[in-house]
Amino acid sequence: MNIGIFGTGHFALAIGYLINLNKHRITFIGRDASQLRELKEKKRNSKYHSYIFENGLETKSLENYISGFDILFYCLPSSCLQLIRYDKNIPIIFTCKGFSKDFIFNTFSNYGILSGGSYSSEIMNNIPCYMTISSNKDELCSLVSHVIKSKQCILSFNNQPSSIELLGIFKNILAIFCGIINELGMGKNIEAAFLSKIIKKLNKIIDFDEASFIEPAGIGDMFLSCSSTKSRNYSFGKNLMTKKTEPDSNTLVEGFISLRNMKQNLNNDFIIDLNIIIEKIINNYSSEDIKEEILKIIY
Amino acid sequence: MNIGIFGTGHFALAIGYLINLNKHRITFIGRDASQLRELKEKKRNSKYHSYIFENGLETKSLENYISGFDILFYCLPSSCLQLIRYDKNIPIIFTCKGFSKDFIFNTFSNYGILSGGSYSSEIMNNIPCYMTISSNKDELCSLVSHVIKSKQCILSFNNQPSSIELLGIFKNILAIFCGIINELGMGKNIEAAFLSKIIKKLNKIIDFDEASFIEPAGIGDMFLSCSSTKSRNYSFGKNLMTKKTEPDSNTLVEGFISLRNMKQNLNNDFIIDLNIIIEKIINNYSSEDIKEEILKIIY
Repeated sequence: MNIGIFGTGHFALAIGYLINLNKHRITFIGRDASQLRELKEKKRNSKYHSYIFENGLETKSLENYISGFDILFYCLPSSCLQLIRYDKNIPIIFTCKGFSKDFIFNTFSNYGILSGGSYSSEIMNNIPCYMTISSNKDELCSLVSHVIKSKQCILSFNNQPSSIELLGIFKNILAIFCGIINELGMGKNIEAAFLSKIIKKLNKIIDFDEASFIEPAGIGDMFLSCSSTKSRNYSFGKNLMTKKTEPDSNTLVEGFISLRNMKQNLNNDFIIDLNIIIEKIINNYSSEDIKEEILKIIY
Repeated sequence: MNIGIFGTGHFALAIGYLINLNKHRITFIGRDASQLRELKEKKRNSKYHSYIFENGLETKSLENYISGFDILFYCLPSSCLQLIRYDKNIPIIFTCKGFSKDFIFNTFSNYGILSGGSYSSEIMNNIPCYMTISSNKDELCSLVSHVIKSKQCILSFNNQPSSIELLGIFKNILAIFCGIINELGMGKNIEAAFLSKIIKKLNKIIDFDEASFIEPAGIGDMFLSCSSTKSRNYSFGKNLMTKKTEPDSNTLVEGFISLRNMKQNLNNDFIIDLNIIIEKIINNYSSEDIKEEILKIIY
């Protein structure tokens, strides 16, 4: 099959790696001309990984109108969603985990979400991953399975893509707050309580399917992000507490951006409450004030 | 109200502490005569904590037939379930998280399960906790709330006690395996995959309510046990891999005991597969063999 991948970063390469194992033809569609050139000529992107693709690969500039593929994978940040132009008859699979102006489920129809506890570095070091492919269309889940499933990539099928999308966004947000609570020394009970309370409140945003939380895209992904200093969002939360200044735009992480974007685009008290905590940290309120705001979420 | 607490250990004291905050009368019902004497005379159990109970407390020996209480809390290990004799008209709330000969839901009727991410040491240092009270009877949830709910103890009501019981048992078992996988250096993807796969397989044991996993007794408790070296079961898993010998009976942890007891008392392939991994570790199989067995669970 003929597969297009939007992106040339960590996760785009990992997805390409998995698809390449199944001998499908891949095309990386990217922005950075030098990375595209290296991919085309040397079959690798040394900025992110030393892996050399064994089978053929093509490249294309993101500026093109994209058509002629059997399926597309979107592995760019959510903030670039506006940049892609493609034939809407082609099914597209999103791996991004952020919120830009609106939810994916409100914006696209012929789509799926691929998500799960999967560090790209581990995938490319041949460590198997277990992911959820979620779509309203069963045949789209089967198509993705045909393209990407192998001993290195185990898939769970799910038909609640809006819930899976929300879990992806919130695993990053929750990781930031776990980092903050940890840095505040409030105790593991509070970290666990905060996590459970937020999950319980997701139905204030959409008609959330609670059973989807047992998916690799739920517990699996959250486990990775919220418990490990390896997680960028978790470390970001810890750093936010120690530095207490507005992070510069280079070090922003997806959870932080999503939270701010959701405040601007959704009218939701619970999102506002979470933003208040972040704003109080940045505006140098005392630890006691921050702790009080965190406890308000729990009560 | 008049509350009886089976046990004098860490969690019995934490439950007593929470109930005491609400000024109810408590009676510790225990086995160890010297601990009971200290509790009676000095209002504390210095073996576990320095906290001195502010309100009056009584003590009773576990050998007595127990009656005359409004509600009972069972805070002993699951292995002691056979030891208690009490008036079955009194509702009883279980906080234990093990499997002895059968499930609590098969053995008791007028009961509830209290469970959640709550380290007893943090509770007694005044850090709030968020727990699930689960019962088939709504009025029993309300009664427990009346007895124990406060700013220090936030409760979530749930009516799927068999699922909550199973999650309690499995959070200990899963923590052992996360410790094992971590010690094997198999990668975070595999830890996350193992966790999600096992949760998905719980319906092979009972008619598992997946939505209950969003409870503090689900994600909250699992987060605490599976991600932290503070957790006894997690450390036990790591030690099992390094020592590779049958642990002596003093260092056994609840997850290990539950897994062995379930093998003996339930006829379930999935439980047998988990036991095989533990047995191969104890019988000094190579790391490669153990890894292969772990991957079998994931595929």
